[in-house]
Amino acid sequence: MKLVSYRVQNKDAWRTGIFRQGRIADIASILPGAPSGMLELLDEWERWREPLQVLSGQEAIASGEQSFPAEAVTLGSPLPRPRSFRDFYSFEAHVKTARARRGLDMVPEWYRFPVFYFSNAAAFVGPNARVKKPASTKWLDYELEIACVIGKAGVDIPVEQADRHIAGYCILNDWSARDLQREEVKVGLGPAKGKDFATSMGPWLVTPDELADVCMTGEEGARYALKMVARVNGIELSRGCFQDIHYTFAQMIARASADCPLYPGDVIGSGTVGTGCILELGEERHRWLEAGDVVELEVERLGVLTNTISE
Amino acid sequence: MKLVSYRVQNKDAWRTGIFRQGRIADIASILPGAPSGMLELLDEWERWREPLQVLSGQEAIASGEQSFPAEAVTLGSPLPRPRSFRDFYSFEAHVKTARARRGLDMVPEWYRFPVFYFSNAAAFVGPNARVKKPASTKWLDYELEIACVIGKAGVDIPVEQADRHIAGYCILNDWSARDLQREEVKVGLGPAKGKDFATSMGPWLVTPDELADVCMTGEEGARYALKMVARVNGIELSRGCFQDIHYTFAQMIARASADCPLYPGDVIGSGTVGTGCILELGEERHRWLEAGDVVELEVERLGVLTNTISE
Repeated sequence: MKLVSYRVQNKDAWRTGIFRQGRIADIASILPGAPSGMLELLDEWERWREPLQVLSGQEAIASGEQSFPAEAVTLGSPLPRPRSFRDFYSFEAHVKTARARRGLDMVPEWYRFPVFYFSNAAAFVGPNARVKKPASTKWLDYELEIACVIGKAGVDIPVEQADRHIAGYCILNDWSARDLQREEVKVGLGPAKGKDFATSMGPWLVTPDELADVCMTGEEGARYALKMVARVNGIELSRGCFQDIHYTFAQMIARASADCPLYPGDVIGSGTVGTGCILELGEERHRWLEAGDVVELEVERLGVLTNTISE
Repeated sequence: MKLVSYRVQNKDAWRTGIFRQGRIADIASILPGAPSGMLELLDEWERWREPLQVLSGQEAIASGEQSFPAEAVTLGSPLPRPRSFRDFYSFEAHVKTARARRGLDMVPEWYRFPVFYFSNAAAFVGPNARVKKPASTKWLDYELEIACVIGKAGVDIPVEQADRHIAGYCILNDWSARDLQREEVKVGLGPAKGKDFATSMGPWLVTPDELADVCMTGEEGARYALKMVARVNGIELSRGCFQDIHYTFAQMIARASADCPLYPGDVIGSGTVGTGCILELGEERHRWLEAGDVVELEVERLGVLTNTISE
């Protein structure tokens, strides 16, 4: 099942829909009593997940009896305003290369536990949104990531139960102002201003059942064989695979929830896949992003997340 | 004017009240149309601020005609669930000493711009709440800070206008697990797990008009001559003054809002005042906190914020 947040006009509240074959079925309309917003739906996820699964398979959605063309509306971030946003650092190749670019060795702590920082949950945008280049940056970058969205609250969640707390997965672009980031982290906090201006997520929230055939589950939780690609103005710059991740989302959830409750609507980012940003590739491969650039992140099964940079 | 969030029973929603002379007047009851929750009140702060100021001065609140004793209810964090939480690092003495304790020199960037990190907005508790010691820490610490709460949205807010975006001030205790923090920041992100388990704020949200006589306003915005003290089990450990802050809240707001909208209900922490935590004082002065310890933060005009550590 793929879920979206959509609206017809800019002033409308975001509504939640099931996405199927280019059409959208409005959830509150086809499922009496279901909330119209994604956050509220996630708050009652245990109640609505199964009825939604049943509905999403029905012919009435594909046929158009209970749906409309996706082109008629604007898609937002599947979760327009997450409750919180934690971004991890879970792909070894990215951490190694990005640190090497700054003249830093790998740190042994990275292999001992998954590390994250809190970022701005109030700056999420969706597919096709324009991302404004911050006035103060010259080194604007994208980051090719996958996010999971929490659908079940919990604290001290063991690794072996953690995947059950995931409502679904999305592509995530953790836009980064590398010059701001480089300066601020010298003080020993953050990043914050290097990341707070925008994060894009989408186009859909894909529930785990859709990925069952590419899922490898072990003691560390689920890994998925999903190719990840980034293109800038149509030229492929980044390529990786989600299964290369060092720490699984289950391990990240266990870490995040230690002594700290997680809630439905919390978003957890994987960190950037190896080669998944210009910082890693180097300016000899591609200049920093500029107004007019079109950045497409594509992950198998999760769709394509396209954004254009604006002044 | 002092505002509180309170409830009678644990299951009740938090309600907002005016606090005066040990009594509370319920805002939604005395001001028809006003929202009952603090976040919703802040969303309409421009509309309600003046009528509330008028009401708060009326005799009916002090006399008991429209109020009840504060002892009859439980106070929460004045804003039980901030929209976001940014914590800065604005007292020079704290940064110098805390870095020196870790064998680090002062960094020149600290003098160039105010630096912050995002922390967990979902773990706020109020006065007298028990703060659970995380199972995984042996080095539990308090941090004596002041917070401001945003009451007016804005982006790219100039320093000279920034104080107008502040609804009020509170005492803030940014509880810290120093051993977790020390390990995770080596990887170059955060702190996150060192700080995510609890933040306490309160007892009141004090509006700026109450502090006019101790306010010094310059080009950098307002500074306040307010003594700050911390006691553990009745013994004074920390003492500082809010006016010693290097970056004003106006400067912090300007920094936070650069290319990034701020919203009502966003909380901004000052960072720890010099001597304001055990990390700075050293274990020779006081051991790390243990279950049963009572930590009192007192700031002139802003009250006393008391919390007890539990297992």
